[in-house]
Amino acid sequence: MAESAVKRIGVLTSGGDAPGMNAAVRSVVRSALDRGIECIGIRRGWSGLINGDFYRMDSGSVSRIINRGGTILYTARSEEFRTAEGQAKAAGVCKLLGLDGIVAIGGDGTFRGAQELSKCGVSVVGIPGTIDNDIVCTEYTIGFDTAANTAVECIDKLRDTMQSHERCAVVEVMGRHAGYLALYVGVAVGATAVLVPERPYDFHSQVAEKIRHARLNGKTNFMIVVAEGAASAVDVGRQIQEELALDPRVTILGHIQRGGSPTAKDRVMATRMGYEAVQILAEGKTNRVICTKDDQIIDLDIDEGLAMKKTLNSEEFKVMTVMTGM
Amino acid sequence: MAESAVKRIGVLTSGGDAPGMNAAVRSVVRSALDRGIECIGIRRGWSGLINGDFYRMDSGSVSRIINRGGTILYTARSEEFRTAEGQAKAAGVCKLLGLDGIVAIGGDGTFRGAQELSKCGVSVVGIPGTIDNDIVCTEYTIGFDTAANTAVECIDKLRDTMQSHERCAVVEVMGRHAGYLALYVGVAVGATAVLVPERPYDFHSQVAEKIRHARLNGKTNFMIVVAEGAASAVDVGRQIQEELALDPRVTILGHIQRGGSPTAKDRVMATRMGYEAVQILAEGKTNRVICTKDDQIIDLDIDEGLAMKKTLNSEEFKVMTVMTGM
Amino acid sequence: MAESAVKRIGVLTSGGDAPGMNAAVRSVVRSALDRGIECIGIRRGWSGLINGDFYRMDSGSVSRIINRGGTILYTARSEEFRTAEGQAKAAGVCKLLGLDGIVAIGGDGTFRGAQELSKCGVSVVGIPGTIDNDIVCTEYTIGFDTAANTAVECIDKLRDTMQSHERCAVVEVMGRHAGYLALYVGVAVGATAVLVPERPYDFHSQVAEKIRHARLNGKTNFMIVVAEGAASAVDVGRQIQEELALDPRVTILGHIQRGGSPTAKDRVMATRMGYEAVQILAEGKTNRVICTKDDQIIDLDIDEGLAMKKTLNSEEFKVMTVMTGM
Amino acid sequence: MAESAVKRIGVLTSGGDAPGMNAAVRSVVRSALDRGIECIGIRRGWSGLINGDFYRMDSGSVSRIINRGGTILYTARSEEFRTAEGQAKAAGVCKLLGLDGIVAIGGDGTFRGAQELSKCGVSVVGIPGTIDNDIVCTEYTIGFDTAANTAVECIDKLRDTMQSHERCAVVEVMGRHAGYLALYVGVAVGATAVLVPERPYDFHSQVAEKIRHARLNGKTNFMIVVAEGAASAVDVGRQIQEELALDPRVTILGHIQRGGSPTAKDRVMATRMGYEAVQILAEGKTNRVICTKDDQIIDLDIDEGLAMKKTLNSEEFKVMTVMTGM
Repeated sequence: MAESAVKRIGVLTSGGDAPGMNAAVRSVVRSALDRGIECIGIRRGWSGLINGDFYRMDSGSVSRIINRGGTILYTARSEEFRTAEGQAKAAGVCKLLGLDGIVAIGGDGTFRGAQELSKCGVSVVGIPGTIDNDIVCTEYTIGFDTAANTAVECIDKLRDTMQSHERCAVVEVMGRHAGYLALYVGVAVGATAVLVPERPYDFHSQVAEKIRHARLNGKTNFMIVVAEGAASAVDVGRQIQEELALDPRVTILGHIQRGGSPTAKDRVMATRMGYEAVQILAEGKTNRVICTKDDQIIDLDIDEGLAMKKTLNSEEFKVMTVMTGM
Repeated sequence: MAESAVKRIGVLTSGGDAPGMNAAVRSVVRSALDRGIECIGIRRGWSGLINGDFYRMDSGSVSRIINRGGTILYTARSEEFRTAEGQAKAAGVCKLLGLDGIVAIGGDGTFRGAQELSKCGVSVVGIPGTIDNDIVCTEYTIGFDTAANTAVECIDKLRDTMQSHERCAVVEVMGRHAGYLALYVGVAVGATAVLVPERPYDFHSQVAEKIRHARLNGKTNFMIVVAEGAASAVDVGRQIQEELALDPRVTILGHIQRGGSPTAKDRVMATRMGYEAVQILAEGKTNRVICTKDDQIIDLDIDEGLAMKKTLNSEEFKVMTVMTGM
Repeated sequence: MAESAVKRIGVLTSGGDAPGMNAAVRSVVRSALDRGIECIGIRRGWSGLINGDFYRMDSGSVSRIINRGGTILYTARSEEFRTAEGQAKAAGVCKLLGLDGIVAIGGDGTFRGAQELSKCGVSVVGIPGTIDNDIVCTEYTIGFDTAANTAVECIDKLRDTMQSHERCAVVEVMGRHAGYLALYVGVAVGATAVLVPERPYDFHSQVAEKIRHARLNGKTNFMIVVAEGAASAVDVGRQIQEELALDPRVTILGHIQRGGSPTAKDRVMATRMGYEAVQILAEGKTNRVICTKDDQIIDLDIDEGLAMKKTLNSEEFKVMTVMTGM
Repeated sequence: MAESAVKRIGVLTSGGDAPGMNAAVRSVVRSALDRGIECIGIRRGWSGLINGDFYRMDSGSVSRIINRGGTILYTARSEEFRTAEGQAKAAGVCKLLGLDGIVAIGGDGTFRGAQELSKCGVSVVGIPGTIDNDIVCTEYTIGFDTAANTAVECIDKLRDTMQSHERCAVVEVMGRHAGYLALYVGVAVGATAVLVPERPYDFHSQVAEKIRHARLNGKTNFMIVVAEGAASAVDVGRQIQEELALDPRVTILGHIQRGGSPTAKDRVMATRMGYEAVQILAEGKTNRVICTKDDQIIDLDIDEGLAMKKTLNSEEFKVMTVMTGM
């Protein structure tokens, strides 16, 4: 392959962490080394870039992390990086260190930072890493599969005790403003009902009638999955108690969903995306985001990517709704 | 072996469910059949006994349940059974069905019921099944090991994300009035601090100083495990925020800890206890509870058993406290 | 929706079982009932159809199975069904029972049976269920994701002890004539080398040099993943011993990979495919197979589907090979 | 507490690794530091001691390892240490480094080494770490619980597919010359039969009749658990095929059982034992082994401990045998 002009790159993780980020970091580092590119790990995201919080990484730096949750590079949110001063400072650090590019792993907040840094003349490529799968331009984001399986395993356990006691459970799962994780999990556990932010919440039709329908069909335990962006599980539980005379148990899965050893899929996707990100940088591109489309890895302009509008696939939503109602 | 006078027994699960109850039911049924004793499954605990909610069980009734959480016999709490009328009604059902004895699987509430029924002339043997491990007369209760491992797995995941973000987590685990589960889990996850109901709660010495000590030793993430009987995790979280200027994440594990496929230990203990319970009944004993002592299965008089007073082993507590503080 | 002419359908699982088959059966049954279509469960695949081994299924028949491995309908291979007499007999049973269609869940052997039965005038729709992901016309087959995760979890454990002892492991994974599962798993565990049947086996370049390369880079433990169709793990182990003077540990994962509670993805895919299969039958189509393409559920003519030729995506293969070599 | 004369100790892991060894190392290091004792990690067991393969450990050296399988100190077997020269060399290294004692974590081979080193004037305390639970003087050895759960989880998966296909499985589990692990696992999975080295192997009574009995009771799938010390699973499988006309599937779990994140019990026991070992050394004792008796941590003279003779508890064995036959 023709010698790349790119000699040294940085890699960082930013925003909320997600299982598989370590696998992505490992892939970036080793793909770079494989091309003779030096790799600098930047700790604590954009904030660490501004503060010069970095170290040189070699192949051993990323040994034994492909199966570990969290991120060895740490992550943080940075107010300072949202200001022009902060961005200029970060660009200055890149110049000082002689970084020919940066791979930034995170969610849409991370990508907005990448856009700004690109404008300052630094080549940046983003890799989508967030359990919420709420990034508009990519079908898949690293961490989603692990988070879904974690939620499913927890709810399987809950269901055991709900069946024994013939009770109703209300479970709140993550997803920020998106209902995709909740819907996916709801289908996988055979939920009685799923509440998502993409549909206006109506207790009567979406909860009460579904519970009644299930009860009339002979069921004596019920599982209501609530996306955090749709409603408060505590409130839904209270309403069930008041209007249906049940005594539901409410669980908020919380940050458990953000950790854990990544699934096979998250490790494979992270590995493929990391490889692609280095390739894009080596080709001299900037302001790109790595995406999946039809199970292929592609790259898009970040501006275009962030401008897209994500919607729940309505065909899929219909099928899922029918199935959770069963 | 000499022909037993016992021809037909009942089995029920009562109180809060626990992983391994199904393995115990299976063992009771198959141990009885192996001795030529007929076995009647009573659904929904004492309440089901009063209401005649039962069915005849054969070997196939308990196929494929050794690895399933919850209880196929369902469980419930019964106000009526606390009254003399309820108990007389239950004893009447036993007479009607010709039950020569009952195996009751549950916690101390279940055993108090067993005492009352024994007084009404029904042979009863109890098997301790509760995740809290809070029954005074036995070293082990079915479900504890599974609940501990579930909590540990969840907290391992939490730790991943707490490390990435350099945060403090506060986790509330079950255990009712006992701190044993919390202490065990706290040691297993290497918690920064563990709060148990057996020790008066002092924020300064038990939380603040432990976090400070860890921070001064270079740690940037902290895990505080709170027994539900010791304090409210939400309150502890608020205090940490106010007095230590950290922004902790609070998780209440809740009913997740009550479900799930039982661990090897819970299956083996349940199997051994179920076998012993049938043997005790076949020997014509009543008002007994199956216990473990020094890893052996023994049986005690329920009255004696319930009169004992459980305390945290103070040597063990000291060791554990030293280790969690590290 | 317009009243469907389809009043009664059968559902069966055939060939090797795969996790998620139960979720597919559940979805078929409940999707049918939702449309007012009666559903007959046929046990033991084509063999059971010939022998009239069936029962009427209602909503409760498929309760609590979405999370269970295996198939409640059992599965078997049938020599008789490969003969014209067997197929005629099976078609006769369909006529006798008044089945307007059959959903057959399985691999390519199952689909060849479906083709034959279609020719006998019975409407058949296939759902791809096999851990091997070796069905030419669909990107995804039910069971692959669970099998991949099972293999990854086992190999993660193996790696722990290989690291402690600084040893070489050789692991044989399933996949029949296809290397996709092995390659996927190999990437996910960070294997030193992966052997697949799609590439001619050369010990020197594919194993010896990769191990040497890793050793020279400082690694002291090695993980070689072998697809069952590529070579015998025992032979590879022997060759490593002879030619590299290492003392490798050989593990054949075997049938473990075929069981276990299905992952979130397998449950969701099975649910969506089951729904679609019933819809296709209700529309009066026959000889179709449900497929995924670009993460959408579509249907193809079985003849066309079986005529396709699957190859490892060579771009993907290259990326994966680079990564496993690291 | 009175100032201890012990100022610096070493810690090593030796023999086959076991999950929980890392938790024990962590506990030794932190318990020592807590007493103001310096801690030296010796890599690769007795072999590493001879070769001076060591490093100084601080609190951070054992961060984040409580939940990791394997051993960060590596392990190896050493021929040289079995010779008087090797032992003298090792004692010399202890003198050179000024080690006032050594904690050796491993199995009975490790303890025989500890005996020899004690005779050379070095204070040594052993901690039992082996998945086989075959050390005569202690009820529990670190790693057993994790290995048992790993085997149970694998066999649960196997059972899924054996049920679907109505097949017989033969599974070989570890345990060296002891049948305890196999018996425990066999009870936990509801095995049809369990073969242990403590009982002479008789195919007819222990396998054939048990399978026939189960088949006559309506079962169509069978699970035979074979301890590696009792027979070869491959041979048992062949005999089943020849004499019972079944087509069994044979699985050898192998080294998978040696890895994986330790269970709650293994972490807690390892932590308690590590603490105790340091205390014993600080008290100036030598040639001791940490044991559990009646769930308490005690210490014994190694010579006495190794002289004991372990037998399967025959009451327990009877119960277990009855249950696996069901």
